Amino acid sequence: MGVVLNLEEGKREGSIRRLLDLTAPDMAEVNALILSKAGSDVEMIPEVANHLISSGGKRLRPMLTLAAARMFGYSGVGHIKLATSVEFMHTATLLHDDVVDESDMRRGKKTARTIWGNQASVLVGDFLLGQAFRMMVEVGSLDALDILSSAASVIAEGEVMQLAAAKNLDTTEDEYFSVIKAKTAALFSAAAEVGPVIAGTSRTDRAALRSYGINLGLAFQLVDDALDYGGDSLSLGKNVGDDFREGKVTLPVILCYRRGTPAERAFWKSAIEENVTDDAALEKARALMNRYGAIADTIARARHFGEIARDALAPLPATPQKAALLDVIDFCISRVV
Amino acid sequence: MGVVLNLEEGKREGSIRRLLDLTAPDMAEVNALILSKAGSDVEMIPEVANHLISSGGKRLRPMLTLAAARMFGYSGVGHIKLATSVEFMHTATLLHDDVVDESDMRRGKKTARTIWGNQASVLVGDFLLGQAFRMMVEVGSLDALDILSSAASVIAEGEVMQLAAAKNLDTTEDEYFSVIKAKTAALFSAAAEVGPVIAGTSRTDRAALRSYGINLGLAFQLVDDALDYGGDSLSLGKNVGDDFREGKVTLPVILCYRRGTPAERAFWKSAIEENVTDDAALEKARALMNRYGAIADTIARARHFGEIARDALAPLPATPQKAALLDVIDFCISRVV
Repeated sequence: MGVVLNLEEGKREGSIRRLLDLTAPDMAEVNALILSKAGSDVEMIPEVANHLISSGGKRLRPMLTLAAARMFGYSGVGHIKLATSVEFMHTATLLHDDVVDESDMRRGKKTARTIWGNQASVLVGDFLLGQAFRMMVEVGSLDALDILSSAASVIAEGEVMQLAAAKNLDTTEDEYFSVIKAKTAALFSAAAEVGPVIAGTSRTDRAALRSYGINLGLAFQLVDDALDYGGDSLSLGKNVGDDFREGKVTLPVILCYRRGTPAERAFWKSAIEENVTDDAALEKARALMNRYGAIADTIARARHFGEIARDALAPLPATPQKAALLDVIDFCISRVV
Repeated sequence: MGVVLNLEEGKREGSIRRLLDLTAPDMAEVNALILSKAGSDVEMIPEVANHLISSGGKRLRPMLTLAAARMFGYSGVGHIKLATSVEFMHTATLLHDDVVDESDMRRGKKTARTIWGNQASVLVGDFLLGQAFRMMVEVGSLDALDILSSAASVIAEGEVMQLAAAKNLDTTEDEYFSVIKAKTAALFSAAAEVGPVIAGTSRTDRAALRSYGINLGLAFQLVDDALDYGGDSLSLGKNVGDDFREGKVTLPVILCYRRGTPAERAFWKSAIEENVTDDAALEKARALMNRYGAIADTIARARHFGEIARDALAPLPATPQKAALLDVIDFCISRVV
């Protein structure tokens, strides 16, 4: 199928090296703020929050905010709080997602809900969301608040859409894109756009970063959904086949189901709608994806959005930040080569 | 124990009649906005949201915001959005609470989670919270945003505190007050304070309404916790004994446990910590509360905070809004007479 996984961690990290270097001093402040704002006299809150916070996510989203602010010459301190807010919104979503998906593992560790229960995951998520809004308010930019609060609504909308489409093989490719645009791309977009916003730049610059973010987010989620059928659990930090076992109707499944024979469609029905998702079923699913080019075409869609993201930044002057943000596109897509 | 329940609906409603009349035109706009902002192309969202929204809560919190804004001569339209935000924050909390408490009934109706599942309740709660923040941002008052976003964090903190104290009979009265101050009184306080804030009045006025709200909220929750052992399910919209069956360590339980004999404490341990909460156990619990004056003393605490709320408003000029807000104190406490 022409898809080879690049599993070497060093090499994968490599392509966001410039972004990591460029944002390192700011990220040190973000990381300190994350720890401080996840703190509470209520012991269980930092316990649950730090479990997820310390579990080795790349913190790509806050780095987007930092780079996007610096790219336009921002020299204040508000970007630190906004970047931290973005990461908290993401963390809150993960906590709630694990409850909704009944997930036991995330990033190679037990999920908070398996250790502290669904209850703590719901409530600590709410706490982090509250803290995110407090930090945004402290920054005082109503435009940034507008962008991030709108994203919060849209993300939840996307999650509900996904829930409503769960186990439904009639989901169209368009409906799938609506879901991932809302649940994933909206936060990438908001994270990128608030950079130029607090830097006080033009509507054109804002639109450029917004467009970059939304398309990068789409590419990111597409690759993530491809990797669920093609990576291994060490490099992904989640188990291959998680989406399959949860009956998620992601693009590889949609393509395979539509392109298959009636007998193959019956297989997908039993797997996705009736939970016949043992190892043999997963192997069969992967073989069908190979036969119909479903993974390769999912990656092709990701490349398409990656190109749009690239062109969104094209008119902007060459800066180290622009170069780093362009690297991120390649990084997201080169997770599968 | 000197506690007689006043179950006649008309009479109970009576004491907030002035508030209802005074805020009726504004509340019509709030109710329209509630329906509009709970709307979404994602069908499940208005379904779940409207189930709870239409289930007959009194909408006391948004009325506080409206009256508190008008009290200081506010003549804009921002109070409608802030009041709606306050109600959405409350609704989101209820949706998440039902998941956390595994509740089947609320206000005499099946909870959303029993109809649509925990997943939808978590996500629609997140959506309503996002919508609440969007509306606040539209109003554009950073002070109001600060107050309401801080309340969101504090409420979640209170809920986690309550979770951590669950089934723990060593909970002190002080710890109980910390919980209800955060989980209930913080929103009453924020709802009241944003009124003078958007009206642009003095710090003294803000402090007065904040103090009124926090103490009213404490009184409200104390009476609610008393009613759980003394009302009937028709008038409460929840079943008497819900807290008992969920093993919640509320003030009536704390007082009874502390005042009881070793044998009685053993009874409480088996009930609260080991879930022996059948009808016979509930009857015994109510008899013990009668013997030790636990309900009467819980109400006495509520009166104490009611008096503080009353005095908080004392220096303010006599207005119809002030009179209506004072009525609310009596209303909350006269739910038990």
